[in-house]
Amino acid sequence: MLVIMRDHATKDQIDHVVNNLHEAGAEAHLSPGEVKTIIGVIGDREVIYSLELEGLPGVEQVIRVLKPYKLVSRDFHPEDTVVTVKGSAIGGGAIAVIAGPCSIESEDQVMRTAEAVRSAGATMLRGGAYKPRTSPYAFQGMGEEGLLLLAEAGRRVGLPVVTEVLDVRDAEKVAAHADILQVGARNMQNFMMLDELGKMDKPILLKRGLSATIEELLSAAEYILKGGNRDVILCERGIRTFETYTRNTLDLAAVAALKQLTHLPVIADPSHATGRRDLVAPMCRAALAAGADGLMVEVHIDPEHARCDGPQSLTPADFSTLMRGITSLVTFDGHHWGLPS
Amino acid sequence: MLVIMRDHATKDQIDHVVNNLHEAGAEAHLSPGEVKTIIGVIGDREVIYSLELEGLPGVEQVIRVLKPYKLVSRDFHPEDTVVTVKGSAIGGGAIAVIAGPCSIESEDQVMRTAEAVRSAGATMLRGGAYKPRTSPYAFQGMGEEGLLLLAEAGRRVGLPVVTEVLDVRDAEKVAAHADILQVGARNMQNFMMLDELGKMDKPILLKRGLSATIEELLSAAEYILKGGNRDVILCERGIRTFETYTRNTLDLAAVAALKQLTHLPVIADPSHATGRRDLVAPMCRAALAAGADGLMVEVHIDPEHARCDGPQSLTPADFSTLMRGITSLVTFDGHHWGLPS
Amino acid sequence: MLVIMRDHATKDQIDHVVNNLHEAGAEAHLSPGEVKTIIGVIGDREVIYSLELEGLPGVEQVIRVLKPYKLVSRDFHPEDTVVTVKGSAIGGGAIAVIAGPCSIESEDQVMRTAEAVRSAGATMLRGGAYKPRTSPYAFQGMGEEGLLLLAEAGRRVGLPVVTEVLDVRDAEKVAAHADILQVGARNMQNFMMLDELGKMDKPILLKRGLSATIEELLSAAEYILKGGNRDVILCERGIRTFETYTRNTLDLAAVAALKQLTHLPVIADPSHATGRRDLVAPMCRAALAAGADGLMVEVHIDPEHARCDGPQSLTPADFSTLMRGITSLVTFDGHHWGLPS
Amino acid sequence: MLVIMRDHATKDQIDHVVNNLHEAGAEAHLSPGEVKTIIGVIGDREVIYSLELEGLPGVEQVIRVLKPYKLVSRDFHPEDTVVTVKGSAIGGGAIAVIAGPCSIESEDQVMRTAEAVRSAGATMLRGGAYKPRTSPYAFQGMGEEGLLLLAEAGRRVGLPVVTEVLDVRDAEKVAAHADILQVGARNMQNFMMLDELGKMDKPILLKRGLSATIEELLSAAEYILKGGNRDVILCERGIRTFETYTRNTLDLAAVAALKQLTHLPVIADPSHATGRRDLVAPMCRAALAAGADGLMVEVHIDPEHARCDGPQSLTPADFSTLMRGITSLVTFDGHHWGLPS
Repeated sequence: MLVIMRDHATKDQIDHVVNNLHEAGAEAHLSPGEVKTIIGVIGDREVIYSLELEGLPGVEQVIRVLKPYKLVSRDFHPEDTVVTVKGSAIGGGAIAVIAGPCSIESEDQVMRTAEAVRSAGATMLRGGAYKPRTSPYAFQGMGEEGLLLLAEAGRRVGLPVVTEVLDVRDAEKVAAHADILQVGARNMQNFMMLDELGKMDKPILLKRGLSATIEELLSAAEYILKGGNRDVILCERGIRTFETYTRNTLDLAAVAALKQLTHLPVIADPSHATGRRDLVAPMCRAALAAGADGLMVEVHIDPEHARCDGPQSLTPADFSTLMRGITSLVTFDGHHWGLPS
Repeated sequence: MLVIMRDHATKDQIDHVVNNLHEAGAEAHLSPGEVKTIIGVIGDREVIYSLELEGLPGVEQVIRVLKPYKLVSRDFHPEDTVVTVKGSAIGGGAIAVIAGPCSIESEDQVMRTAEAVRSAGATMLRGGAYKPRTSPYAFQGMGEEGLLLLAEAGRRVGLPVVTEVLDVRDAEKVAAHADILQVGARNMQNFMMLDELGKMDKPILLKRGLSATIEELLSAAEYILKGGNRDVILCERGIRTFETYTRNTLDLAAVAALKQLTHLPVIADPSHATGRRDLVAPMCRAALAAGADGLMVEVHIDPEHARCDGPQSLTPADFSTLMRGITSLVTFDGHHWGLPS
Repeated sequence: MLVIMRDHATKDQIDHVVNNLHEAGAEAHLSPGEVKTIIGVIGDREVIYSLELEGLPGVEQVIRVLKPYKLVSRDFHPEDTVVTVKGSAIGGGAIAVIAGPCSIESEDQVMRTAEAVRSAGATMLRGGAYKPRTSPYAFQGMGEEGLLLLAEAGRRVGLPVVTEVLDVRDAEKVAAHADILQVGARNMQNFMMLDELGKMDKPILLKRGLSATIEELLSAAEYILKGGNRDVILCERGIRTFETYTRNTLDLAAVAALKQLTHLPVIADPSHATGRRDLVAPMCRAALAAGADGLMVEVHIDPEHARCDGPQSLTPADFSTLMRGITSLVTFDGHHWGLPS
Repeated sequence: MLVIMRDHATKDQIDHVVNNLHEAGAEAHLSPGEVKTIIGVIGDREVIYSLELEGLPGVEQVIRVLKPYKLVSRDFHPEDTVVTVKGSAIGGGAIAVIAGPCSIESEDQVMRTAEAVRSAGATMLRGGAYKPRTSPYAFQGMGEEGLLLLAEAGRRVGLPVVTEVLDVRDAEKVAAHADILQVGARNMQNFMMLDELGKMDKPILLKRGLSATIEELLSAAEYILKGGNRDVILCERGIRTFETYTRNTLDLAAVAALKQLTHLPVIADPSHATGRRDLVAPMCRAALAAGADGLMVEVHIDPEHARCDGPQSLTPADFSTLMRGITSLVTFDGHHWGLPS
């Protein structure tokens, strides 16, 4: 950490900062300049992050050089983390395609969609039982009944299933039926939920919040790893910007940056990011080309009658075409499908 | 709702949309143009918001004219809602100043701060017992012990207390000690928590999410009112933008707009929005001038040693000066302090 | 400037940075830590800002402590700059209200509007002769004819006039008729125009770009002052964010921050920022309460038939009401109207 | 265009809107509902875009169904536009790679860079002679001398050259030396410059503004086409968002969307978008996978000593590696390098 003092800060002000640092158990290294003194601070991450020096007299700026996370960092753990569920892998060269409907609506809908995505090559099945909806008047999901249908569909087609935990109180219940627990964008900084999921032994798929920075996403993942759960998959799903043509702005440079900063697998969700069916395929290709370890794609047997996210859902036929179109990108550079063997 | 068909959509495509509307129980009114047909839709809010027509063949755009909320709307309830707790009022001309430390750190700290803000004229006391922190290595609050200290401080100085519910599982516990339950920006779309708080009989202070639109804030409040709890206070606390000089961008036009759109009281939190002590006072004045029903201000007896948000906390002396400086703005236009009698 | 080296950067890498600094004529002060070395750099602003060290091997981050501007800084020139044109002042306690139509449409329209705003208390007259329009099919302004009408209207009612320079080639022509030359938001970083205006002897009203930071606005003003023209007025007119209820987001904390950072007068334009007539008055009050030195307000004798920005234009009656409503805010704190004597 | 009246708007208010439409020469089609009346408007694009109905009494919202552009639209011109300069093509399957230094610094630098990028396979040469810089104290480019050096380098290696027009007064001079004229992001809405370039017979490379929407980019291009110049290349170069890890956020969904909306070639500039050398290659791959017709890449023989954008410039060796890495993406789907024959 660096503390940059204001121009011509007094000796008293400088001493005062140094005393604060010593009290907290950190070391201070002064670098006096003609107009500005800069204080280098050395100490534990916990100490550094609990210090609040910005308000001290004479302090102009405090720069934290240490990152607010450690366990998720590639510096700390250089090899790729590979998350494997029921034989289906993601990370370390294994590419996942997690496909299925936005929400589970009926047995027929989820079974037929599961079969369609399986036969087209998906490596995992997704489906929402609890749906976060902006308006309280919109469809909120089938709840536990949906969970059971999703689990049954996964069993039938032999794919692991991914679904969202919307309420921390439901985490155990969801974990009883799902193979991977998803944290939605709106809950990325629901720290109590992250703490709880950190204690579980199921992989977590953590979506980036709509206005979360890369550093905040990594810090949220750190909460889970700090609890003991090392199987976290990060998901870029679009950030909120001024552009309204797409629902959100898919930040693929974040995918490439995350692959450098962390050992955790990183996937992209072009369906939610764009909100437009006709942009899903090009953004899937782009995400893989940027280095993503996988994709999350909404597929519905009958998008016209979907109870949520119809406009961005692919038909099974669209999805088949997409899967054929990305084969050359997946196998490029020694990568391979993370299919259950 | 309006469905705008693509140029030269076929009769079959138009009929298909109309059939979908009829199936859902809505009425369709066609307005055929030379190149474009527009379909006006009439039906219940619940029906309209559950329809997903964007994906139908030939549909170019769907425009929802009905707002996704109703109970919070001023159209539905023209008079100002006044929230009163322990004789202290907010709304309908009563101006609240909710002051106190970011986090409760010790008995001495909270008691002395409470006395200081009370004597300077604050109408409510705030303090955090559970703190949402980006990094898992930062101070997370004193928990239940903090709650007890805050409640005791409120009793001593005769002010109602406001504190955040961070975990839906703690809602009852927090409600046992606090007079107003705060939902933080990161939980604004934690719909399960909103549902739970909708069933409680304590007023809720709902903070705007970092990237939430005005419409989304009102929809989040609608969740609470729909559950039966009518006492909701909205709080503008800055949105996330590209500007980094301030921590967030305080959107005071949102305050003025909310006062027109809803009957609920609306306050502003310049401390969190700006993150800079020297901008708190001018933004407090600006918020009141924009029509806010109150302010939320961080005050700490010793900001230098605050365990959170020190850089933006006012000293008791700063706060006294602020309170004197805003008197003319509060009493303007027939408004008055919402102090407990 | 600080150069933060990567963890365990080699001695060669550190020497290499130091050599680069010496070659450029800057001094380097090493601050070696256990894992990280930090290099403090001292030198001229010009040298510091021309250095590009981010790409050197072993460099993690470069932090510029020196601001990219100097002449506009309050550190450099602590007293408020007061811009005076034809006896009408702005800055140093003098509050300006610059009112008039978005665009000049006819002699009758501009004369009647000028009389109306003058009698309601405006201190300057505005009007657009050259209009920047997103679509090439929208009304582009009356051009030179509009300039002449505006100048004539100003003479008749005894107010200085403000108008936009849209094309650097027109700067002389506009200066021949106008008292203050406006740089629109889209031209804030049209550096060639800033250079040109820096050589002129007319005050410049510089609007903040839609996505310009506070630092970039100050740097743009620095271009003008560097050319020799010291009379620059800054204008906050809303930044582009994700919120769509208002046209832009009026950043009033930027007004308060600018008042601290620079000696130049700072005004706000709630008409363009909000794009909604019913938000103009509360945002005018809020801007003054935040410390603005003035307001820019669109007024049209017949907003329904305005050829541009009708939805946000006030009628003369609205404007009169607004002016009466802000009197107490203007005279607060020893401020006064900057009216021509 | 649709005019949505407020709930229970009066007959007088509706008639008033209709009269306004008739006066302007547009047709009005009423669609009365129980609570809301909607008025469909039919007329010329020019008329529709000059109407300002939002302020009329009783009007709630005005929705423009017609796009603000026409000539750039794929509806109007379904086949891909192919821009060809000196035998080097872009669009219609021909992929361009425009490489070279951010700024021209010396004869040696530009010649050696030109040779390096030519031999690695670049199809065009770029280089800045006039540089837009945030700070007036940063290097502003070599000016006309730089133009001559660039033109000479292009001749020697047999590649067309691209350079920025920073000042409308220099357009002719730049056109005398360059093959393609670039409009920088900060000038995207410099409408007077767009008008001027619309009259020239050189292709224009139009960069998206930092906070410009897709629709605004297309409207800016429309200015050029409306002037008669049909050879416009669009360039996505990152938009400004809250994320600070990358310099801007590369919006690749905008590339895919533009390819659907317009017939003009669309390229991406990952160097400026990311500001980080190590993200350039993955973002180049991603851009091509998203459907871009080309790339713009900063290459410098000695990035450490670059006078601008060193941190994001590739070395000739990096660039060679990049070019080999993208071959499979370029030749995919029947595309080919747009190299001069």
